[in-house]
Amino acid sequence: MAVHEALSPERFAAAREAIAPAIQATPLVSSPHFSRLYGCRVYLKPENLQRTGSYKIRGASARVALLSEEEASHGLITASAGNHAQGLAYAGRARDIDVTIVMPEATPLVKVNNTLAYGAHVILHGATFDDACAEALRLADEGGQVFVHPFDDLDVACGQGTMVYEILEELPETDVILVPVGGGGLATGVAVLAKQLKPDIRVIGVEPSGAASLAASLRAGHPITLPQLDTIADGVAVKHPGERLFPYLERCLDGVVTVPDDRLVPVFLDMLEQHKLLVENAGLLSLAALRELEFSEDTCVVAVLSGGNMDVITLSSLIQHGLIARNRIFTFSVLLPDKPGELERVAHVVASARGNIIRLDHNQFVSINRHAAVELKVTLEAFGPEHRSEIMQRLREAGFEAHVTLSTSIY
Amino acid sequence: MAVHEALSPERFAAAREAIAPAIQATPLVSSPHFSRLYGCRVYLKPENLQRTGSYKIRGASARVALLSEEEASHGLITASAGNHAQGLAYAGRARDIDVTIVMPEATPLVKVNNTLAYGAHVILHGATFDDACAEALRLADEGGQVFVHPFDDLDVACGQGTMVYEILEELPETDVILVPVGGGGLATGVAVLAKQLKPDIRVIGVEPSGAASLAASLRAGHPITLPQLDTIADGVAVKHPGERLFPYLERCLDGVVTVPDDRLVPVFLDMLEQHKLLVENAGLLSLAALRELEFSEDTCVVAVLSGGNMDVITLSSLIQHGLIARNRIFTFSVLLPDKPGELERVAHVVASARGNIIRLDHNQFVSINRHAAVELKVTLEAFGPEHRSEIMQRLREAGFEAHVTLSTSIY
Repeated sequence: MAVHEALSPERFAAAREAIAPAIQATPLVSSPHFSRLYGCRVYLKPENLQRTGSYKIRGASARVALLSEEEASHGLITASAGNHAQGLAYAGRARDIDVTIVMPEATPLVKVNNTLAYGAHVILHGATFDDACAEALRLADEGGQVFVHPFDDLDVACGQGTMVYEILEELPETDVILVPVGGGGLATGVAVLAKQLKPDIRVIGVEPSGAASLAASLRAGHPITLPQLDTIADGVAVKHPGERLFPYLERCLDGVVTVPDDRLVPVFLDMLEQHKLLVENAGLLSLAALRELEFSEDTCVVAVLSGGNMDVITLSSLIQHGLIARNRIFTFSVLLPDKPGELERVAHVVASARGNIIRLDHNQFVSINRHAAVELKVTLEAFGPEHRSEIMQRLREAGFEAHVTLSTSIY
Repeated sequence: MAVHEALSPERFAAAREAIAPAIQATPLVSSPHFSRLYGCRVYLKPENLQRTGSYKIRGASARVALLSEEEASHGLITASAGNHAQGLAYAGRARDIDVTIVMPEATPLVKVNNTLAYGAHVILHGATFDDACAEALRLADEGGQVFVHPFDDLDVACGQGTMVYEILEELPETDVILVPVGGGGLATGVAVLAKQLKPDIRVIGVEPSGAASLAASLRAGHPITLPQLDTIADGVAVKHPGERLFPYLERCLDGVVTVPDDRLVPVFLDMLEQHKLLVENAGLLSLAALRELEFSEDTCVVAVLSGGNMDVITLSSLIQHGLIARNRIFTFSVLLPDKPGELERVAHVVASARGNIIRLDHNQFVSINRHAAVELKVTLEAFGPEHRSEIMQRLREAGFEAHVTLSTSIY
């Protein structure tokens, strides 16, 4: 293996060729919306449109292509809560290799189902990725399967990097590439190959504030382990960056930016509304980081959207949070006398102000005061903060003591 | 105008050139999932990724490009509930032309906001598209603006057809193109140009059962007006196909298929989960029609996904309907004695069967029978019908009289 240990240009070129039949070259999408928002020329690399829903199939396919027939006959095993699982299952099936994935017990059903659909065996074990990983290593030891690490493997990193060929062929003027960072496989592959192909390009890694293991490791000068993880970007929730990758990351990354979770929600909603793309939280880190960075108007920035494997129930909940955060939905509460016709009067004021009612809660007996005996809670869709103020103003003019509640719910 | 009245190859070529700066060439996406499901080689033409979120910008830009300076100085006006509004607003702004859009009063806020964001004036008027259209014509008469019809205009149809160049250049072996049909602008442009470029190609139009005005018109031999519309595919809810388009549709379309609304919901969910794409209901008609058609395994079918402009609140509601329809979420009801510890026992059974609880309703006082005094309703996420049966079986084994309820709600 020693001869293969360096991430040479030849190794990337071989990976590109090996994975070509398995992957879909994803086209860059120019984004007028995000360009306006962030004041530079923003392009998206939509790896959520990649087969299996994330870039992980690149690394998995590159690794599988290098297996000898003998290794392949033993089967593969790995641990993953999601994207690597699907990528490896797909890549293994393409070579008719037996694949086993150990997933944490709390893995969302849709990811389990997709992995099963790609023909892999799934074992649910342990509470965290680390538990599942320990079990996968134990099983590999017992059964002789080849263990394929989700990130800390140079061949895997090499495969992930292949997207740089596509980016620079389509947009040679790219100045900056932003990549989400979990264990560092994607960041390593992208940074190393980008610098080989265009030495003055900048590659910046992005981590969620609640799982910034690479930022902490770079500060420490060596890979460190975070005591805990706290982020909605589950795809990059990794406590410890790849040991073998760390020297490459230290040398080739131009910086690491951290982004708090709450910055992801509005970007998620914009991505659906403006680009009609479903991107998982981890995949949005690169774009969300643009709020923390300052580029000139003509800087050409490619944000890698690393994947789109999100539970649709989570999706619904993010939409609700996003709409509330933008004052596009809100709830007001009003106390009404317990007599006929009051609901009709409120409904009239709301309708005449063009508020769209989404939900009503009508609770009797909130007080024994006959003039304020019923609490009506109305959840509305509005154009934004000004429209909200207008609706509230009209209610007050009509004599209602209405106030906007602190919490709201679409449903 | 007479010289321009025929949809000649030259006219398409000129339209393609004219709109090139405005549009994004959308890449075909091969779909292993839908290919397996429908038994042929399925490719998607994702015009939801087009600028303004739908193909409508093609026709609008083609029309705007042909305006004289004098016409442009009068400004443009149209009526539209959505996609044409955004397309025309965008195309007008690119030439610095004043654009006014009359939208029905019930237009979703997001579509109004997007149209405003593209710099157009918006007038909300009337209950239906027809009312808004009458008002737009009246205003044009009064103010002298150029009225741009959303579909019944050969230059507009010509612009919509330009996507055929992209399809056939990328996938010359295309055998069939499926297109959603509303007024017929897209279908006309696609069918006429496709036959010019590849005479043996088949182009099939798809309408929702509740708005099948073209199917009815073809049967009648002339354009007829539907008495009413009833479909969730709002983008194609048109009572009367384009008069000027009808002769082309009659000559060049190989058939029209109708699809009931309930077929769209599972396709919507698959599109999000498998392809990470948000496609509006009208845009899914082409794909959903594949259930009604029979093609051999090697037939190359391109389904045009015409747009993705859907309200995110509607999106959440479709997700819920889709998950219920697939038995991936369900609600069971169980009557419990009014004593401590009962909820814990139910929760234990559910957890041990790996059911993921989404929502609980606990209603006391449903009966005066002390042994069945509390109704507990539990909404769960399951892997599918078998998992659901297993959970219900385990509850019965634990002595609970549980039954699956007819209605369910995630929220």
